[in-house]
Amino acid sequence: MGQPETRVRRLPENQVDDLRALQAILHSAVVAHVGCVIDDYPYVVPLACAPWVTDAGTGLLFHGSTGSRLFRALAKGAPTCATVTHLDGLVLARSAFESSMNYHSAMIMGTAVELTGEAKTNALEALTDHLLPGRREELRHSTAKESAATMVLGLTAQHWSVKVSSGGPDDPREDIEATPDLWAGSVPLVSRFGDPQPDEFSADLPTPGYVDTWPIPGKSWA
Amino acid sequence: MGQPETRVRRLPENQVDDLRALQAILHSAVVAHVGCVIDDYPYVVPLACAPWVTDAGTGLLFHGSTGSRLFRALAKGAPTCATVTHLDGLVLARSAFESSMNYHSAMIMGTAVELTGEAKTNALEALTDHLLPGRREELRHSTAKESAATMVLGLTAQHWSVKVSSGGPDDPREDIEATPDLWAGSVPLVSRFGDPQPDEFSADLPTPGYVDTWPIPGKSWA
Repeated sequence: MGQPETRVRRLPENQVDDLRALQAILHSAVVAHVGCVIDDYPYVVPLACAPWVTDAGTGLLFHGSTGSRLFRALAKGAPTCATVTHLDGLVLARSAFESSMNYHSAMIMGTAVELTGEAKTNALEALTDHLLPGRREELRHSTAKESAATMVLGLTAQHWSVKVSSGGPDDPREDIEATPDLWAGSVPLVSRFGDPQPDEFSADLPTPGYVDTWPIPGKSWA
Repeated sequence: MGQPETRVRRLPENQVDDLRALQAILHSAVVAHVGCVIDDYPYVVPLACAPWVTDAGTGLLFHGSTGSRLFRALAKGAPTCATVTHLDGLVLARSAFESSMNYHSAMIMGTAVELTGEAKTNALEALTDHLLPGRREELRHSTAKESAATMVLGLTAQHWSVKVSSGGPDDPREDIEATPDLWAGSVPLVSRFGDPQPDEFSADLPTPGYVDTWPIPGKSWA
């Protein structure tokens, strides 16, 4: 098995060789699409994630069931690819060919390691703090049974690539001149958190204030 | 090589065995995360997509550069997995263990076929009509050179799975009773299109009306 190839061959103008760009994308992600090979087939599964920066490098944390076939394969050291994509909008050029999307995405490749003991405890807390900031202080401690049912994996990027596309269309001059009355530009796609929906036992309780401060997934980049 | 495994082993209560559910998710997708195996490594790449329903079944269309290593591998019949995920919100349970996300996602597996001739032309139009509804009528026809530089792939789901999680937390009774003052529920994540941004040649032109009618990606489900 050789080295995986992460160099961007097509649209190389979109590639960004900046570790801070990688970290910014991973830090604003709550879901990554994780791929691995099981019995020669590729599987791509969305997983909740948190950024993971250690002395070994930059990557992502995942947690799942100890009974998950995917997690067992990842923990055994199967080559793994995790991709985070934030779709920022649509680009309306003057031809279908030049029309495109704005996005920022990161692909990291490596082999995951299963975290245990104190590292596992810390990682689970980091996941809760990343996915639901401010929430953990209100929750009871996890039980030994819950921890035993949960596998925590850390994936450090041994190879990575970042691609970013932003701004408006890049039409050739002849298309611009041929269609002076054709609107061209971009349409942003924006996300926000909606009104919190209490469950049946929380209808009379105040909404937690920390929800109002949550960063929008994918938006710390901007 | 055996059959790929798409049965949901964990959280089987989230699995939906309904072809209409699969089609609804694919029809509201503009990006899929596509995985394949190249030189024993998994690669997961975000690709613009459109739904593709033929006599052979339900799947997705993709287009890319004929020079793309990924597209060449897919066109050769490499086993392929395409996953569409719409993140609908976060679920704040009374423990970290029960906290989760609301989403609807589909995973399709099969081998892609390269479309040529009239099928390719039709598929490219379908992609434009899906990604930028109403736009194509305003655009010039694609050139032979543009078409020659573009590869169009159709992936029919030979195997598929759909997972949906919605609603509020499902805390055990003892957690509800132990923390009566703890708010629990869900926080939706909602998307919309922002104000269209004209490029420098379109500042004085009216914004296309069709933009106002565009469906929000991932939201036809609701």
